[in-house]
Amino acid sequence: MKLKIVTSNPGKAAEFREGLNHLGIEVEHCSIAYDEVQTSELEEVVIKGMEALRSKGLSNFIIDDTGLFIDALKDFPGVWSAYVQKTIGNKGILKLMENEENRKAEFRTCIGCDMDGETLTVTGVCKGSITQSEQGTEGFGYDPIFTHDGKRTFAEISLEEKNEVSHRGKGIRLLVEKLESFRSAETERN
Amino acid sequence: MKLKIVTSNPGKAAEFREGLNHLGIEVEHCSIAYDEVQTSELEEVVIKGMEALRSKGLSNFIIDDTGLFIDALKDFPGVWSAYVQKTIGNKGILKLMENEENRKAEFRTCIGCDMDGETLTVTGVCKGSITQSEQGTEGFGYDPIFTHDGKRTFAEISLEEKNEVSHRGKGIRLLVEKLESFRSAETERN
Repeated sequence: MKLKIVTSNPGKAAEFREGLNHLGIEVEHCSIAYDEVQTSELEEVVIKGMEALRSKGLSNFIIDDTGLFIDALKDFPGVWSAYVQKTIGNKGILKLMENEENRKAEFRTCIGCDMDGETLTVTGVCKGSITQSEQGTEGFGYDPIFTHDGKRTFAEISLEEKNEVSHRGKGIRLLVEKLESFRSAETERN
Repeated sequence: MKLKIVTSNPGKAAEFREGLNHLGIEVEHCSIAYDEVQTSELEEVVIKGMEALRSKGLSNFIIDDTGLFIDALKDFPGVWSAYVQKTIGNKGILKLMENEENRKAEFRTCIGCDMDGETLTVTGVCKGSITQSEQGTEGFGYDPIFTHDGKRTFAEISLEEKNEVSHRGKGIRLLVEKLESFRSAETERN
């Protein structure tokens, strides 16, 4: 079978390809634009996005949405992470976190998969904290100010290590599990 | 004729009622939920919202969307103003603006009106700046940190004065003008 990864980011498509390859699922990168709704729930963004794509006639596809949720900022920037990054950026986040002792934060990725009209969703979470300053040059977005082990930021570890511990890596592994059980249930039915 | 004001805010409906009354347009408050898309353009949020409401069978209605656009923050919080207010709030904005000399900001309201399937949109703008601290107890949202005259914030002036100078007040007056010319053109056609 074949699944389309709907994203404007080719790197993301490559991550999905790597994760789904051993299931014999062929992954195709596909960059159709669709509207993301304004809501504070990642899963709602994904489910409504899937509805929008289905209404365009698409089936058998994967989309995802990712956010950084900072405890002391009442989950800001959350589902607006991409836009916040483009405006106030990491410097803005560090300013908001000045003199803040509670530095807990987590990255969440929600992945939605359409399988012949059936909806599967999974959410991968990576718990960590916000550093006092930007560190490292790898990765992108909030990586230089997020640490999962309290020592190195996501911009200071290799992509391989990041995939092992990150929200998206976990989300992809959860999706693989769900797809495996979905397909074995389907085989039983047939 | 009758127009439905689609909003969860009864105060907003009252403002529209007052503005449209003298045109002989009856205003009805109506709180149907609709999805707002994630985009950095206020007008796009409104136009897509109108499409969503039409697909639910609604016609002859008004919706609006409002944002605070801060120059030094690359237009943050913009279309996400409502969510940013709920999370980091005015204290967060003041923290982001610490030691910032450029304090220019503007409120913008985009109003969309469906007239028998025709789309009218107008945008009202109120230019001003961000204060150094919260001042005043009137109004709501960003009012205590926004001043249009460099002296008093929107939380320190009367509602009457605010309606005269505010983005929404201006937007409603622009809408009234457009509705007047739309209706006189229609009369000419018939």
